[in-house]
Amino acid sequence: MTHPLDRLWQTVEARRDADPDESWTARLLAKGPEKCAEKFGEEAVEAIIEAVKGDKAALTSEAADVLFHLCVMLAARGVTLDEVLSELDRRSGVSGLTEKASRSSER
Amino acid sequence: MTHPLDRLWQTVEARRDADPDESWTARLLAKGPEKCAEKFGEEAVEAIIEAVKGDKAALTSEAADVLFHLCVMLAARGVTLDEVLSELDRRSGVSGLTEKASRSSER
Amino acid sequence: MTHPLDRLWQTVEARRDADPDESWTARLLAKGPEKCAEKFGEEAVEAIIEAVKGDKAALTSEAADVLFHLCVMLAARGVTLDEVLSELDRRSGVSGLTEKASRSSER
Amino acid sequence: MTHPLDRLWQTVEARRDADPDESWTARLLAKGPEKCAEKFGEEAVEAIIEAVKGDKAALTSEAADVLFHLCVMLAARGVTLDEVLSELDRRSGVSGLTEKASRSSER
Repeated sequence: MTHPLDRLWQTVEARRDADPDESWTARLLAKGPEKCAEKFGEEAVEAIIEAVKGDKAALTSEAADVLFHLCVMLAARGVTLDEVLSELDRRSGVSGLTEKASRSSER
Repeated sequence: MTHPLDRLWQTVEARRDADPDESWTARLLAKGPEKCAEKFGEEAVEAIIEAVKGDKAALTSEAADVLFHLCVMLAARGVTLDEVLSELDRRSGVSGLTEKASRSSER
Repeated sequence: MTHPLDRLWQTVEARRDADPDESWTARLLAKGPEKCAEKFGEEAVEAIIEAVKGDKAALTSEAADVLFHLCVMLAARGVTLDEVLSELDRRSGVSGLTEKASRSSER
Repeated sequence: MTHPLDRLWQTVEARRDADPDESWTARLLAKGPEKCAEKFGEEAVEAIIEAVKGDKAALTSEAADVLFHLCVMLAARGVTLDEVLSELDRRSGVSGLTEKASRSSER
């Protein structure tokens, strides 16, 4: 069975060539990557606010919006979800201790 | 086979009770939801910047960071990834045309 | 002569008790601090995008929006612009070298 | 007497050509506009979080950080504070009612 995130991605991809009058996703993609990044940023801010407020239902909903607009922003730049998931897989080889070392060096 | 996003979630959950000295994730969760939201915000900003610059490899990497810190922020507030994925599934019943109507009314 | 930032603050303060039907500022304040913080966040994201794009005229305009929505967010929480400016003054006593030391310890 | 915001700007401008080893501002500017925008975004997120939490002292401090990093981001792109303040002045000619109309058309 298809994972909900992959299904979300397929929906975004399928709407890329849809009529902008019929699809909100198509309309957003037609506005270009900067506008898609702006919308992603708005949703990220809303998720942060709900996380701080501690409203779990609202945070659940905003997190879903973040995933949707992350996919749209990736699609707008020609990056696929699979490339991002492969990056996650690549990192998951990193053990807890190695993680600590590599993360620490970030700062 | 487990989806990479579910595997990421399991990793975050597994490290929740790890020694903060051994795990960066445990250390972040120990700082509380506001700090986790702040880190998520930092990664969202970095993803936006790479999306605008158009650096696809950097955007791929930042998108993976966004997914990781979204999971940490959710975990910090006791929201599960499954709840967010269920919300996505609930919405995916919405057709393109209905999507348009429901989204338009957002603004 | 009044500084433009102080004049902006006075305008925000003056509109606090205006009719929300007549003033956008009054309407935003009536929605509460979280909504004001969300709007500030949107403007911050737009300023970031223009800074990365390098569009100087658009960045100038977005920076003005950031200042306006920063004032609204402060007003919504009962913090005055003068308190923020006093904080700036307090810090300006810090010399370049001390700045370096105090800033470095942030990370 | 110089306004605290103008003094802040003068400090940023003065440190532009300072030794990056001696000045945190010089070091940040040397990293380029994208890095300055990233730091501004981090401070904006922190201000949002304090505004939602309702911690007035912390919000005051974060708002001062926002103003500092806004100035650095502008300086990194060759936009002056005066240009932003002139934009504020230009807008202040707009009356409450006109404001309402022009703002409403934003969305």
